[in-house]
Amino acid sequence: MSKAPSTSARDVVRKVAPKLIDMTEKVVYGDVWERPGLSKRDRSLITVATLLALGREKQLDGHLARALQNGVTKDEIGEVITHLAFYAGWPAAMTAGRIARRVFEGSTP
Amino acid sequence: MSKAPSTSARDVVRKVAPKLIDMTEKVVYGDVWERPGLSKRDRSLITVATLLALGREKQLDGHLARALQNGVTKDEIGEVITHLAFYAGWPAAMTAGRIARRVFEGSTP
Amino acid sequence: MSKAPSTSARDVVRKVAPKLIDMTEKVVYGDVWERPGLSKRDRSLITVATLLALGREKQLDGHLARALQNGVTKDEIGEVITHLAFYAGWPAAMTAGRIARRVFEGSTP
Amino acid sequence: MSKAPSTSARDVVRKVAPKLIDMTEKVVYGDVWERPGLSKRDRSLITVATLLALGREKQLDGHLARALQNGVTKDEIGEVITHLAFYAGWPAAMTAGRIARRVFEGSTP
Amino acid sequence: MSKAPSTSARDVVRKVAPKLIDMTEKVVYGDVWERPGLSKRDRSLITVATLLALGREKQLDGHLARALQNGVTKDEIGEVITHLAFYAGWPAAMTAGRIARRVFEGSTP
Amino acid sequence: MSKAPSTSARDVVRKVAPKLIDMTEKVVYGDVWERPGLSKRDRSLITVATLLALGREKQLDGHLARALQNGVTKDEIGEVITHLAFYAGWPAAMTAGRIARRVFEGSTP
Repeated sequence: MSKAPSTSARDVVRKVAPKLIDMTEKVVYGDVWERPGLSKRDRSLITVATLLALGREKQLDGHLARALQNGVTKDEIGEVITHLAFYAGWPAAMTAGRIARRVFEGSTP
Repeated sequence: MSKAPSTSARDVVRKVAPKLIDMTEKVVYGDVWERPGLSKRDRSLITVATLLALGREKQLDGHLARALQNGVTKDEIGEVITHLAFYAGWPAAMTAGRIARRVFEGSTP
Repeated sequence: MSKAPSTSARDVVRKVAPKLIDMTEKVVYGDVWERPGLSKRDRSLITVATLLALGREKQLDGHLARALQNGVTKDEIGEVITHLAFYAGWPAAMTAGRIARRVFEGSTP
Repeated sequence: MSKAPSTSARDVVRKVAPKLIDMTEKVVYGDVWERPGLSKRDRSLITVATLLALGREKQLDGHLARALQNGVTKDEIGEVITHLAFYAGWPAAMTAGRIARRVFEGSTP
Repeated sequence: MSKAPSTSARDVVRKVAPKLIDMTEKVVYGDVWERPGLSKRDRSLITVATLLALGREKQLDGHLARALQNGVTKDEIGEVITHLAFYAGWPAAMTAGRIARRVFEGSTP
Repeated sequence: MSKAPSTSARDVVRKVAPKLIDMTEKVVYGDVWERPGLSKRDRSLITVATLLALGREKQLDGHLARALQNGVTKDEIGEVITHLAFYAGWPAAMTAGRIARRVFEGSTP
């Protein structure tokens, strides 16, 4: 993920908030995700947990796919969702489970 | 609702997080909802309130239908939504109102 | 609760936002809580659920005390907290449990 | 916006929760938004910020359109979204950016 | 506020997360708050709205003080709190009102 | 952590909601945390992320201490906080940083 390729979500937002996308690419992906203090697998775990907890559904698709690329297995994602049902509540976990199913099966919404 | 029939949402998530669905059926519906300390009508009221407040829209459909089955009337649901506009904010209430309208009219999204 | 006596929290906020307190007294307590479409016990149940779910700890004290006045028993409040652990997450429930213990024992923070 | 015309969202909810819509028109738009203590532009800024932060996506469309009417420019909305990425998190800002793009281009979902 | 003086909160966190504080000073205050696309008064309004909505109480003190420095009057802050009671809910507004009272009277918690 | 010793928080809540504490010990710590599908270090990472994101401050102390026991280093916790500033917002990260500082220095609130 070190190249932080432009994604369609970023392209949509770039016209509205170009500075935000500039920082997404230079600060979030270009700097923070590349820092050696935490592995990319760890960063994916905590990012997915945060998106699940806050119900940020639109970003969960992309970050679940990224988690798979960063070495989190599908079974581990299922376990993350199960574990977090207790901390973020069942509804947040059920919604994440539905999104994960869609990502795992390679379909787009 | 004491039999906790498998629903389509559970079927979707089961493949991703089977333990979560196992606990949904054995712990959440098999144990907690069946406890005598609070009526099913009361449990529906507080579940709907929580889903409305947290904006868990995907679960609100099913729990509004369940609330009707558990004896909460349509007028009472409207009153719950009106009351909670002050505690969870107008936007949460308006979204719940739109979902309730859909559930009351028996249409599925 | 129909008289909506001025509380210390309202007195603190009145100087900063007098219109807010005016509406608290005339609209929230003077109108909404008095509407016949839902019993005061039901209104207390959904208000407590919302405050627990949103983590609005500073208001939970007062509304737990109000719930007791409106006929929700201490055991029922314990059951509400247990039930909502699954919908709002364990941490929200544990925090509510600590506040309820304090309210039940009549101590103020 | 001083006439608070009935919108389709209100019409949908009115049947479920008529008192809520009555208060939307008389209290929220008829009273609060008309108070002289804060300009309509300022009210739009803080309303958009709140909807973005809480992820109330269904209301953000309408309030972004209202913000434009109240004198907030498209560039300023982009700047609001960029600024709030740091306070409400990147995912909330990205979702708002997508909704803003849609509103700016005049398409409806 | 253009000098972004180190505050005690930053000093506490610096030892735990030095990169976070570095970015607070260089990116958040050194870059974003200084951008010309939105006045500092506008930035204070939307920051206060976001903190109120998300219940980030520990940061509200400092940003209310900053809002006063950036030209938002005490009466306007009261009006912001009143307005947002409808969008973020009464409990969030009441808590913000208590914090504002403390800030206005110059006392520290 | 496999023995799930009774903690003071649980003891406080046990009297109010005994079933909740029973499930905390048998289901959350006795079953879920012990499942082999995810390491305890991974579970601590996602639990801390969720508590930070949701602002569940009262539980963050204990779970930061548990994270240290489960092999997350202090530097890694600092990195988690820095990373999540972008996903949960700066205020959530700053509050977590203050709590982490207190936990690292062994003081109790």
